[in-house]
Amino acid sequence: MKPPLDFWFDFISPFGYLASLRIDDIAARHGRTVEWHPLLVGVTVLKVMGLKAIPATPLKGPYAERQIARYLRRHGLQLGRPASAPPMNPLPAGRLFAWLRAREPACAKAFARAALHAHWALGQALDEPDALRAAARQAGIDTAVVERGLADPAAAALLRDEVDGAVARGVFGSPFVIVDDEPFFGVDSFELLEEWLARGGW
Amino acid sequence: MKPPLDFWFDFISPFGYLASLRIDDIAARHGRTVEWHPLLVGVTVLKVMGLKAIPATPLKGPYAERQIARYLRRHGLQLGRPASAPPMNPLPAGRLFAWLRAREPACAKAFARAALHAHWALGQALDEPDALRAAARQAGIDTAVVERGLADPAAAALLRDEVDGAVARGVFGSPFVIVDDEPFFGVDSFELLEEWLARGGW
Repeated sequence: MKPPLDFWFDFISPFGYLASLRIDDIAARHGRTVEWHPLLVGVTVLKVMGLKAIPATPLKGPYAERQIARYLRRHGLQLGRPASAPPMNPLPAGRLFAWLRAREPACAKAFARAALHAHWALGQALDEPDALRAAARQAGIDTAVVERGLADPAAAALLRDEVDGAVARGVFGSPFVIVDDEPFFGVDSFELLEEWLARGGW
Repeated sequence: MKPPLDFWFDFISPFGYLASLRIDDIAARHGRTVEWHPLLVGVTVLKVMGLKAIPATPLKGPYAERQIARYLRRHGLQLGRPASAPPMNPLPAGRLFAWLRAREPACAKAFARAALHAHWALGQALDEPDALRAAARQAGIDTAVVERGLADPAAAALLRDEVDGAVARGVFGSPFVIVDDEPFFGVDSFELLEEWLARGGW
């Protein structure tokens, strides 16, 4: 069995959401599984790299809007909220996801999928605990598990550890994939990533 | 006859050089020609966008090195200088290229190809007039034409106009392609660009 791919995304990143819809299928076609990790671009892009958020970056902001629009048309998708709308607070969803990864790993990916769907396909905010409860319910996660995660103060540190670990591996954007130590940034690199998997690198 | 593609590159950009090796072939496969334009990422990225140069950007700098290395392996290419070496002054080559585009357009692309080859494949600096003369000679351009371009103070303004025009069209990085008003940034977007050309957009 080949080692899993590592996949990072931020709940506030439309590109991260779009990537989440494909990454497991891409990996499966080549006999791989995927470990999903939370990322905070507010830490990596703004603090560590010293850049601005994409929508606030001249020229890059409008380009990203065109890029998303043509990606959605190409893949027959729609977003439930504008990609450039002000972002929600990513911490509540990120913390619960990090906690699930650490304490109830079998539930983590299903929660992330449901939360990304609620936010990006249905346009719902995930700032409040009730929205996270609803996403977890959609994912079929036991209520008691979710309440433990929401109440556990360790969740914040677990998310911080994930983000620190990502930076230590050179991860900066959403989505980001590492396969056998080779880094791929951005959903537009997924065709190249798939070629890498098919050929076993080059 | 379909309208030409517009292609921008900076002489100091390794990705711009790599793109220059493919863009005319990609366009030709779909019945198109390509207009080559000079760009100064020192203006677009540093001044207009307020970002740092890629090699000076934490996390992004090391990623770009990996990206270039795997691109070179994939395409069986080598560079004559490290991609992350301190850049030469891009103005002399950019000005002569902008002048040729305006005054001797039939010579412009051949000069750009020879200059990019000298710099990126052979590792030569192009800061000095003699290096530009040598590149122009390699391109088979008449000596008198080159001397007029090197001596004409209008060259600086012609380059400025090109860069201003690029920014007005939303161009920021090297390489950058616009086809029928659709923008494509980065050599890693060239597979998508080719799909766009083949399908006539979507």
